Order: sequence, then C-alpha cells, then structure tokens
Amino acid sequence: MAAINTHVHRLDDAVVDALGALGVATVHEAQGRKGLLASYLRPVVQGARLAGSAVTVSVPPGDNWMLHAAIEQLREGDILVVAPTSPCEDGYFGDLLATSARAHGCRGLVIDAGVRDVRDLRAMEFPVWAKATFAQGTVKRTIGTVNAPLVCAGARVCAGDVIVADDDGVCVVRHSEAVQVLEKARAREARESAVRERLAGGELGLDIYGMREALAQAGLDYD
Amino acid sequence: MAAINTHVHRLDDAVVDALGALGVATVHEAQGRKGLLASYLRPVVQGARLAGSAVTVSVPPGDNWMLHAAIEQLREGDILVVAPTSPCEDGYFGDLLATSARAHGCRGLVIDAGVRDVRDLRAMEFPVWAKATFAQGTVKRTIGTVNAPLVCAGARVCAGDVIVADDDGVCVVRHSEAVQVLEKARAREARESAVRERLAGGELGLDIYGMREALAQAGLDYD
Amino acid sequence: MAAINTHVHRLDDAVVDALGALGVATVHEAQGRKGLLASYLRPVVQGARLAGSAVTVSVPPGDNWMLHAAIEQLREGDILVVAPTSPCEDGYFGDLLATSARAHGCRGLVIDAGVRDVRDLRAMEFPVWAKATFAQGTVKRTIGTVNAPLVCAGARVCAGDVIVADDDGVCVVRHSEAVQVLEKARAREARESAVRERLAGGELGLDIYGMREALAQAGLDYD
Amino acid sequence: MAAINTHVHRLDDAVVDALGALGVATVHEAQGRKGLLASYLRPVVQGARLAGSAVTVSVPPGDNWMLHAAIEQLREGDILVVAPTSPCEDGYFGDLLATSARAHGCRGLVIDAGVRDVRDLRAMEFPVWAKATFAQGTVKRTIGTVNAPLVCAGARVCAGDVIVADDDGVCVVRHSEAVQVLEKARAREARESAVRERLAGGELGLDIYGMREALAQAGLDYD
Amino acid sequence: MAAINTHVHRLDDAVVDALGALGVATVHEAQGRKGLLASYLRPVVQGARLAGSAVTVSVPPGDNWMLHAAIEQLREGDILVVAPTSPCEDGYFGDLLATSARAHGCRGLVIDAGVRDVRDLRAMEFPVWAKATFAQGTVKRTIGTVNAPLVCAGARVCAGDVIVADDDGVCVVRHSEAVQVLEKARAREARESAVRERLAGGELGLDIYGMREALAQAGLDYD
Amino acid sequence: MAAINTHVHRLDDAVVDALGALGVATVHEAQGRKGLLASYLRPVVQGARLAGSAVTVSVPPGDNWMLHAAIEQLREGDILVVAPTSPCEDGYFGDLLATSARAHGCRGLVIDAGVRDVRDLRAMEFPVWAKATFAQGTVKRTIGTVNAPLVCAGARVCAGDVIVADDDGVCVVRHSEAVQVLEKARAREARESAVRERLAGGELGLDIYGMREALAQAGLDYD
Repeated sequence: MAAINTHVHRLDDAVVDALGALGVATVHEAQGRKGLLASYLRPVVQGARLAGSAVTVSVPPGDNWMLHAAIEQLREGDILVVAPTSPCEDGYFGDLLATSARAHGCRGLVIDAGVRDVRDLRAMEFPVWAKATFAQGTVKRTIGTVNAPLVCAGARVCAGDVIVADDDGVCVVRHSEAVQVLEKARAREARESAVRERLAGGELGLDIYGMREALAQAGLDYD
Repeated sequence: MAAINTHVHRLDDAVVDALGALGVATVHEAQGRKGLLASYLRPVVQGARLAGSAVTVSVPPGDNWMLHAAIEQLREGDILVVAPTSPCEDGYFGDLLATSARAHGCRGLVIDAGVRDVRDLRAMEFPVWAKATFAQGTVKRTIGTVNAPLVCAGARVCAGDVIVADDDGVCVVRHSEAVQVLEKARAREARESAVRERLAGGELGLDIYGMREALAQAGLDYD
Repeated sequence: MAAINTHVHRLDDAVVDALGALGVATVHEAQGRKGLLASYLRPVVQGARLAGSAVTVSVPPGDNWMLHAAIEQLREGDILVVAPTSPCEDGYFGDLLATSARAHGCRGLVIDAGVRDVRDLRAMEFPVWAKATFAQGTVKRTIGTVNAPLVCAGARVCAGDVIVADDDGVCVVRHSEAVQVLEKARAREARESAVRERLAGGELGLDIYGMREALAQAGLDYD
Repeated sequence: MAAINTHVHRLDDAVVDALGALGVATVHEAQGRKGLLASYLRPVVQGARLAGSAVTVSVPPGDNWMLHAAIEQLREGDILVVAPTSPCEDGYFGDLLATSARAHGCRGLVIDAGVRDVRDLRAMEFPVWAKATFAQGTVKRTIGTVNAPLVCAGARVCAGDVIVADDDGVCVVRHSEAVQVLEKARAREARESAVRERLAGGELGLDIYGMREALAQAGLDYD
Repeated sequence: MAAINTHVHRLDDAVVDALGALGVATVHEAQGRKGLLASYLRPVVQGARLAGSAVTVSVPPGDNWMLHAAIEQLREGDILVVAPTSPCEDGYFGDLLATSARAHGCRGLVIDAGVRDVRDLRAMEFPVWAKATFAQGTVKRTIGTVNAPLVCAGARVCAGDVIVADDDGVCVVRHSEAVQVLEKARAREARESAVRERLAGGELGLDIYGMREALAQAGLDYD
Repeated sequence: MAAINTHVHRLDDAVVDALGALGVATVHEAQGRKGLLASYLRPVVQGARLAGSAVTVSVPPGDNWMLHAAIEQLREGDILVVAPTSPCEDGYFGDLLATSARAHGCRGLVIDAGVRDVRDLRAMEFPVWAKATFAQGTVKRTIGTVNAPLVCAGARVCAGDVIVADDDGVCVVRHSEAVQVLEKARAREARESAVRERLAGGELGLDIYGMREALAQAGLDYD
C-alpha cells in the first residue's frame, strides 16, 4: 500500500455544510447512534462549528513529518484528521501548520494527540479538536500514511468521510451514507422543534411521548 | 421502596439563596470541610453560580428514561442531581430536557455523567455541572429512582438537601444542617473580609494568624 | 538542610520578560525541547501569559501552611511554584493567598495540585496554572520547604529559575541558561516569521524545508 | 457529633459468613444491583475472599493517625473500611497496622487510598482491597472519625454494615437488609447452578431463557 | 444491515495456531507495527496465550443481551470480541457465559469493558482480556450486532480476523493478510533467535546491528 | 553537554545491597519521606526485590535507539532507569534487550514507559518496574542521553544514585546520602521490630506511642 493516497472522493459542499449546520448530536442520532469520536477530544476554540471532508493522516508518536506531506493533499473544504500509531500527546500542530493548511483550503483539525500555539490558533479562529494542549515538540524522521483508513479516538475514519464537530465533540459520517443521514437528521430536527415548543409551554415528556403506561409496566410506582 | 418519592421537604428560598451567594468554598469550610462532590464535575457555563433544593435521580448506564419522570417532580427552585448506577459518560441531558426542566422551575443540573447540546445550554444560560460533554445518545428502557438518597460524584445527596455550585465545583448541605451552616458561613466570610484588607496592605499571614512560633516549634529554620 | 532558603539569585527583569514575550512553545524548542511541565497543568485564566523567577514551595498533601511562610520570601517579579510531596488535588490556594502574594510582588502561581476561589482569581486577573479546581480545604500542621529544588509536574525547578507560562502550558528555564536560551529563542522566532509569510502565501513546507527527497528516501510513495 | 462512635451493632457471624461464601457478584445482584464499591479498588492478595462487619474510618489526606484509634474499636470479625476526606493514594497502612489490627480480630481492610509493605501483607495473608500500592508515608496530626457513615469508593458504608469482597471487587450490604439479601442470594445461586449444567451441555441461553421472541420483536434479524 | 451476520470466513486452524505460537509482539512487528489493541486491556489469567477467529459483538452500555445471541454464532476455535457503543466497565461476562461459550467452541474473550466471576474464570482457565474487573450487573433490553465490523480498544476488528493475545496484550491480523503475516513473523523470529544468542554472549547491539556510525552522525558523543 | 557520560561513581555493593534488603518503605521513611517514584510504576514480576546503581537513559517518545548505547555503559550491579522526553507507553524493552543488559551486569529496569515480551521477562526473572505492558514497537532514529540527570516518574535520578525497588514501588537514594540513609533505615527497622512484637501481642499503638493525650487535645471524643 502506498503511503499517500491521492484519490479521494469528496461529497458536495451542500451536503457537508447541511450536516454541519445540524450539529453533532443530531447527526449522531440520525445515523443510528454511531460514529462519535471519544469524548476526550475537546474544542480548542469554544463555540466553533465545523464540517468538511476528511483527509486522514497516520503519524508515529512524537513525529509530525507526515503533516507536511498531508497539506499538499488538501482541497478546499477539507479537514485534517490525525491519529498517532500509539498514544501520544505531543504538540504535533501549531500556528505555522495552521497557516499552511488554511492556505490550502483546510477548514480545521481533529487530532487524537496534542496541539500548541493555541493562543495563535484562537486568534486565527482555526477550529481544532484535540486530546491535549502541550508544547512538546516533535521530530521529522519517520513516514506514515495519508488518506488510508484509520481509527481516530475510537472511531474509524476514511478519506472523504464527512466530519462534523462542535462543542459536543466530533462525529464521522460515511461518505456512502451521508445523503441518507442528512435526510434523517433533518426529519429529526423538525420533530424536535415541534416538541421543544410544547416542552417550553410546560407539557411533560411523560405525556408528549406517552410514556406513563410503559413506565408503570416496568414497575414504576409513586409514594 | 417505591421508585418515585413524592414527599420532599424543601428549605426556604431565603436560606438556599443565601448559601448560594456565599459560594462553594466558604460553605464547604463552614460545615467542617465536608460535602464536596468530586473535582471532575466541571461547569459547562463558566462563571455560573447556583443554589437550590436537590431532586435526586438514579439512572441506569446509557438510559435517561427516568429523567422524564423526574421533571414532573420538580418545584420552583429545584436542582436535578443525577447519578448513574455504574460509571457512564453518555449524554443524558440536552436542550430539550433543559427546556422542559426549566418550564417546571428547575434552576440547573448536577450530573455524574455526560451532557450534550452544550452550545444550546450555554445560549439558554442553563447551569450544568457535568463529568463529560459527549453527544452519545441514551435509550429509554429501564427505570431507576427519583428522590431516593444516592451517591453523586462521591458525595451522598438526599432529596431536599441544598446544592451549592460555582466555578469551584459543587457542595451539598444537609437539609437539617442548612440553617446552622449558613450562620457559620456568614461568620467565616466576615472574618475573611477583614483579613483580606490587611493582606492587601502587605501584612503577612505569618503575623496576622500568629504562626511564627508554631512554625519554629515544628522545626522551621532559615538559611 | 534548612526549611527555608533565603538566598535566591534572580535574573534581570529584561531577560525574564523577553522570555515571557516569546512564549512557551518557542522557549521550549530553543532550549533543546526540555523543561516542559506536564500537560495536565491548565491555565485558570485563559489567555494569560506569565514570566517570572521561581520561588519553590514543597508542601505535604492537604496542608498549605508553608505557603504563608513562602509569601514572605517573595520579591517583585516572582512566581510561586508549588508541589505536594505526594499527589493531591486539594485547594491549597484561593483569593486570600492571591491577595497576599500579589501584595508582595508575586506575578502568578504554578501548582501541581488544586486551587479554589477561581471566580475571584479570574476577577483579580491573577494568573494560575493548576492541576485541578477543587474547593477542598487544607490544614496547617506540617512544614515543608521553600526555595529547595523540587520536581513540579514532572520537571525539576530550582529557586531563581525562570518560569514561562501561557495557554500552551508551563516551561522552566535554568537560571544559568536563560540568557543563551533567550538568544536562541529570538533567532527561532525570526526564522518562523519569515516562514509563516511564505506558508500563508501557499508555498508548501515540503518545498520550503526541502523535504521531498528525504521523504522519498524514507519510502514515501503516491498512488 | 463525637469523633468515635463506640456503639456498633454487628450481625451474626453465620449471616456474614454465608454472604461471604456467596461472593460479590451474587450478593450484588441479589440486593438489586446496588452496593458495589468502585472497580478501581483491587485486591492486594489475588484469590482472597472476605466478609465481615464494617468499622468505618474517615481520615484526612496523608494522615493515618485515626487508624490507631480505630483499631481499639475492632471486634472479632470486623473489617476496616477507610476513606480519605479528599483523594489520596498515600500508604496509610502497612505490616505494623495489619499486625495490630489482626491481634484485635480484624479480618481485612478496604481502603480508598494506598497501602504499603504489600510483600509482608501477602506473607501474612492479610486481605486488602486498595486503590494503590504506594510507599508514601503519612503523618499523625489531624483527627477524623470512627464509625460515622461515610462514602468509600463511591458507596455509602455505615458501621455494622456487611462488607463482602473477592477478586470481583467489594460490595456493601446494609445491616438491616442482610438477612433478606442472604435469602435472595441463595435462591439466585440455586437457579444459576441448574442453568450452568444445561449451558455446559450445549443448550443455548437463547432457549433456556426463552429470548428468541423478544429479540425478534426488538428487531434482531439474521443474514 | 442485519443485526447478525452468519456468514463468516474463518482461516485454517494451522495458520491461526501458528500465529498464536509466535505471540503478540512478533506478530505486531511482522505486520508493520499495526493492529494492537489498547494497552488497558489486561489478561485476567496471567500467562494465558490465545489465538482464534474473531466473532465480533457490539453491545449497548450496561446491556449484555447480545452475548447470548452471539454464542449461537460461535464455531470451534472462535474468540468473542466485544465492544460497547460507549465507554462502560460493567461486568458483561461471567462464569455462566464462559461455560456456555466454551460449550460452543469458544477459546476466549477480548472485551473493551468489564468481566466478573474472575475467580471462576481463572479456575476454568478461560482466557479473558478485559478493561476492568467489576461485578456490576447488566440488563437485557437492547439489541446490538454480531459479526459486523467494529472498533475494539482502538483497533478495527472484522469477523474472521485472527486475534492473537498473550501477556503483552492483544493484536488483530486481517483475514486477508494472515498467511503473509505468518511468513514474515516466522522470518523475524528466526532472526531474533540468532541475535539473542550473540547478545547473551556479551556482544553489543551497537556492533551486531552496526549502529555506531549512524549514532555518531546523529551527534552522539562521549565524555 | 555530551550525549553519553561515561564517568559514573558507583557506591559499594555492600551499601547498595543493604539498602535493598531494607526495602522501599523503610528506606523512603529513613531519608525523610522523599525519593519515591510515582505509584503507577508497577513490578512486572511480583515479589521481585532490587537494588543497584542507576544508569540513566533519556529517550524520545517511541524511539529506543539509545538503549543500545546505554547497555555498553552498564557495569556489574547497575540498574537501567529510563524516561521518555514526553509521556509514552510504547514497548521500549523486551527479551532481547534484557538478555543483552544482563550479559553486561544489569540487575533490572525501571522505566516510565512500556515494556513487552513480559512472559519472557518473567521466565528470565529479569526484574522490571514499568508504567505499562504494551507490545507497540519503537524506531531507532533519534538520540537521547545516557547518565545525564533526569526526572523519572516524578523523581529526579542521577547516574550512580541508588535505586531500591520492590512490590511497594521504586525509591531513589542520592549517592551522597546513601551511607547515612542506610544507618537511619537500620535504626528504623530495629525500632519497628520491637514494636511489631508488642502489637502482635495485642498492645495498642495508642498506648505504645502514647497518643491518647494528644488525640484528646486534638478534640477526639467517644460516644
């Protein structure tokens, strides 16, 4: 297998952006409660929202050489998804790489490791979800892969999959399922909007969802 | 034991609110350094301050059914205190439940598990202290209890106990001890205000508290 | 060995402040990628930047008596560096100690343990890097040391060493190496500024750093 | 409240020992899946099994003074249950305290903190469930409580409650519920023995428990 | 997608067993340093060695219903590989399920969650690699999948892949790569045996591997 | 500073071995409760006891090249003390390195990272204290240092310091303080032996140490 796969199929921006607008919780539910990355990935910039096509990068522990090769593979609307081959929290990515990635169309970074220069990243409003903030420098000695499938923070990601990220975390949607997931997510949101209004008016979920009988059958009693 | 205890004695709002104004650190000290929940509970909304009467909810891992039943038990000024029966960081609570809880008088949430829709929770200014932010959805299959005593993040909480929470964490005050704790907390705060001024003026704690002799007896020497 | 060492050599403010302006990531790289404290130390006040001379304090678990003795040793421009003798996340330091420390010239706190009154610390804009926020109170029963060498969050710190801290974490620079590190850090920053501009213009790191040949030799291939 | 409560009601040895023989998993299920202490408590002596009446000890972080006072309260068949008032992994207990505790009838130790001299504890076959093995010494400066209710590793324990511990962890049974729990646990074990034989013979749980229809209704399908 | 995939292609026992005999470290290196499951999976029975074909089971948090359905899918030589859909350490598996699984040809269990009855599992010599030992019981309410691809402890596993496990941890080998990996692993072991003898005789790795020049070029100097 | 320091002063075997015989807990107490490495270092071979002179090795994350250079520096009675420059749990050390190290007089390994081939290490009875067991392979690309001072698992270690390790963990004794610490440790052990006998006979620590009055003054009361 070659180290760099240059053949990535991206989805239409319209699909990607629509998924992003719906947000992680809704998209995750709509696709059958799958695809969440681990909760230890936290947004460096609170309130940021992100959606894009994954460019995956597998890196050795403490070695960020491959990120330079990955940036050349970026297209407008992409997101870097980086995972080390063994657990590592070194600062693989900082303001220089962010500057370069943005110049090549990159919308943000999801990394199962550390980042640094976070003051600059915040000033640039470059969205990052990371495992750690750590200034520890890396070397450039060993190659990895770009756009091969990988596991990032417990979820499998392939190049061209859609990444959705916000304050709730990060979710991956398979390229082949994105259109269908979008449809379901929109339906879910519509249902939730209707319910939200009724809940705000004081109606109980017990009644809206008709839960009282099932709860009683499950043994719920009151004292 | 019934699953839902509907007989909860709440304290006067005046007592609850006065404890809230004093804050977690002062209240914790005033009641003999007890009642703190574990430090891994973090505020979703930085700077939030909260005090209220506990409505306790015990939930199975990955199952938030009981939260719907709990909302019916809320009264003006209450706080939901939620603990799973085994460690779980799923997102039990989001903007719909927050909308519903608020409509029934709920002031906030303390949960030894995860929450989601945190962007919405922040926009709503709904105060939450949680173990994790995680979009992972839950099911509605198994009942738990409402207003039974439980252990939340290492501290025992009974329905009607006072919960005080701020950026320092979360503290529980027994219903039966709240009035006495309030008194001691006020006295403590008064003492601290006097000392704060002297410290700001450059006087040393060594002198204000008369520690020099005790330190010397304990073996403190200077080189 | 005496408990309190009163003979600390501080560096010139000009050197200390210049290191602080360059920031943790640059200083850490410039001194050969050493001196970082563990990434679990997090800033209580986001965006804060700090540089100063270390006053080191070794404390027993759950006992902050020695902090009062340490404050007397502070000089204008110092930073308190506190480490417990065994892991502890109690709230050793709050608004009263911050008030007193500031009155004696202290610029901030680095502590491998917990702090409290963080709302007040933020209002005071008193910079703190800590392992935890926890209201748990401490006792005043057992002495420790001030200005003896210690290990704080995995890094050795001696009194008079320079501490640099920002959103990327905390770094220590040996007193004897500070001038030389400053020089190297300035050179590094100059180089990075030049590169940043080229990267922003779309040039690739692969080309700027001439990595293509080395990557090919390491086996990188494209598909 | 006095620091030491000398009035503890213990259960009959017959009840306690019968619960111990049934083991943690069975007892925990029989009492409605409650009472487990956190899974981070690990047995120092693998294969040990333990049951006894709880003598509870609340200790400050890094201070084991109260253990000496607690030993005087031990009666034949008791177990020390120790919890620090804030998280601490210091070595509160070693071979000297084990020797003394055993001389006063103590059957073992459950501690939400550290122990040391574990080579000696193993040689003595003194059963211990602990959070850590750590040689860190403690001081004797601050009092705590003996036989007051406390939370140990996430579970509430009162003096005189039954503690059951084995390789699966530690479980607490309320004094008032022990007889009833024993009865249910025995019934459960009888049922399990019958099932075990059928499963060993190759019958499927799907058939023994009649699960096929419910699984199909829940949506299970085969491909 | 159906919940249970009944079409699994297993490899020849000869290949599987040969991989098992070579062990995790050798197999992992031979396949290019990939396929390791996270190091937090620990063997319940120290010294156990295991190899077999994966039967994958995805389970909800706190719900082990699907394990009963999975056992029916087992064939002689299989290994159960179980992952919860969100982090959970409940005791999904104990002596009854082990008895049943063994009766259907199962060689062992790899689970990114908890197990219980470990005393029995050890007595049965049923090999288990798990994240936790925890007696916490589970419910039987929600279905999952059997033999769908999943991520277990950070590594992707498909039904029919080879699992190799020993005291070093757990490694997965793709079904399609197993024969080739076996060949490389045998070659590696042969090389290591030759080197081991020379190292035991006192020759240095520096000389055997001819590292001295490369180290000098990298800047290694002696003082 | 050169990468490899070849000038290490070792202590007499008699001193080193005598410290080892006294064990970690006693030595740690005798030197004023300092020098313990973090409790997450665990013995790979339970029951092993070790004492020797430290040969320190600083390694990059995921790179074990320097271990080969370090083995040449070993003398009879030495212990390898290895720390990565950033947190890493890769398997730096296995049976080949153990074979080589032993051939050059090495008594054991203390490593703030991972090891592998633990089955072989146990068969060889090669004592290891490590942070993790993980088969993850390392590269050989980047140099580090041998026999420079470093921080390992939170404690500073210099070449030639004495390392004592047993089931309680790992302790370092400064080269310059070893003789004095030995003397104090022997005295401590003598005192403990006398007390152990009295405790075994049923005398209380309260009486042997004369604690009753101090406890009463501290507020201890009985109910």
